[in-house]
Amino acid sequence: MPKTSGMVSLVGAGPGHPDHLTIKGLRRLQEADLVLHDALVSEEVCALAVKAMRINVGKRAGREQTPQREIERLLIDGAQQGLKVVRLKGGDPFVFGRGGEEALALQSAGIAFEIVPGVSTAIAAPALAGIPVTHRDVSPGFIVLTGSDPESIDRVLGSIAPGGLTVVVLMGLGARDRITSRLLAGGWNAATPAAIVLGASTPAMWTWRGSLGELGSIDLGDSGAPGTIVIGDVASLPIRLTDEKGLEHVTA
Amino acid sequence: MPKTSGMVSLVGAGPGHPDHLTIKGLRRLQEADLVLHDALVSEEVCALAVKAMRINVGKRAGREQTPQREIERLLIDGAQQGLKVVRLKGGDPFVFGRGGEEALALQSAGIAFEIVPGVSTAIAAPALAGIPVTHRDVSPGFIVLTGSDPESIDRVLGSIAPGGLTVVVLMGLGARDRITSRLLAGGWNAATPAAIVLGASTPAMWTWRGSLGELGSIDLGDSGAPGTIVIGDVASLPIRLTDEKGLEHVTA
Repeated sequence: MPKTSGMVSLVGAGPGHPDHLTIKGLRRLQEADLVLHDALVSEEVCALAVKAMRINVGKRAGREQTPQREIERLLIDGAQQGLKVVRLKGGDPFVFGRGGEEALALQSAGIAFEIVPGVSTAIAAPALAGIPVTHRDVSPGFIVLTGSDPESIDRVLGSIAPGGLTVVVLMGLGARDRITSRLLAGGWNAATPAAIVLGASTPAMWTWRGSLGELGSIDLGDSGAPGTIVIGDVASLPIRLTDEKGLEHVTA
Repeated sequence: MPKTSGMVSLVGAGPGHPDHLTIKGLRRLQEADLVLHDALVSEEVCALAVKAMRINVGKRAGREQTPQREIERLLIDGAQQGLKVVRLKGGDPFVFGRGGEEALALQSAGIAFEIVPGVSTAIAAPALAGIPVTHRDVSPGFIVLTGSDPESIDRVLGSIAPGGLTVVVLMGLGARDRITSRLLAGGWNAATPAAIVLGASTPAMWTWRGSLGELGSIDLGDSGAPGTIVIGDVASLPIRLTDEKGLEHVTA
């Protein structure tokens, strides 16, 4: 097969609003011929790919996610046809984005590829709600896991001592009960501060603050927005941000 | 005091190269009247603040870091004079940047402020060396700590079970011995893959790959570049990236 100029960029879209996209991410989108994006990437970010064909390969109401092998085949086919392909993922491509698997598949197929890191929702969602994942004399580090896989919740939360570290769970709203039970069983105090940030960086952003003990049982309504859970003393620091409309994000 | 239009933006500069700055970060720099930046923020990023007075408040050869209270006073004074002030930090402002302390000081002083998240070096430095901090069936999560404080190393590393999670240490080069000893004493296997990424995203980027057992004793020369340490099975995944010059970043 002749060498073409096709290549694949694995790009992190950041937490949602295009303001949080990187300069390189923006450039790659503007130059792209083909964009494969997850369902969670905002329409505003996708729309920056002005000349690209766009394919949503994520889960959507009534439609299953495109199988991982099929996504990889589309990336490889596009690059082999000489296209500039962007694989666009919410947050950062290497934080629970299966970016590593895609990179290995591209490498095996001899396709040129690059990683364009993004602002991770794990750090930015708390930050935009006024919660620093680290804070002197409060939290000397943080741990990030995903709520989408029960076995992974048990493995990760079972491997850390109670308190001490900030715990951030991406895509964890549906697993709140499991997370709470696992931590309480592991010796965490039910009074440990906790927060949920929904729709970070979007106009629908909404923050709940309370305690680990309450985390499992609060009613989140039927919001379909992705949520980030933060557990640890940083969640009760009194930093309060206002958005550009002057509205307080913090609701509880 | 009359209300002015002064405000402070706590901005994450990303890992180094301006390509990894966010669109909002770029806009805030371009509009800024005053920029207080850490020593680790690259000259190329600082130079984007075309009309601002710039002050390096970080540690530099032969000069001590500006005391934290003095930095906070400069931020408050600037905003009270009606200036658009940017506090520019390497990586993300809430990941070991004392951003939370500065936010609280600004809030106490009644100064308008905002958080502009950045691409964290904790995720991007490994990523740019081809190391995903999470990977299916390899690492279900990651933990981030700083090497700059021995007590924090002991606390954090003492709170996690051996293996299972990717460990990322920022500013940890000088603490390699302590990190290695602490993990080995905690039951980690000396053969656990490890990597060091120096100068991520800069032309001087350099990656070492080896094992936890070797981490403490390798000779890094007298590079003054900030380094990111990664410990865990993800560090031996065979993803290999080339930069735009086609050079292999991976050296060992």
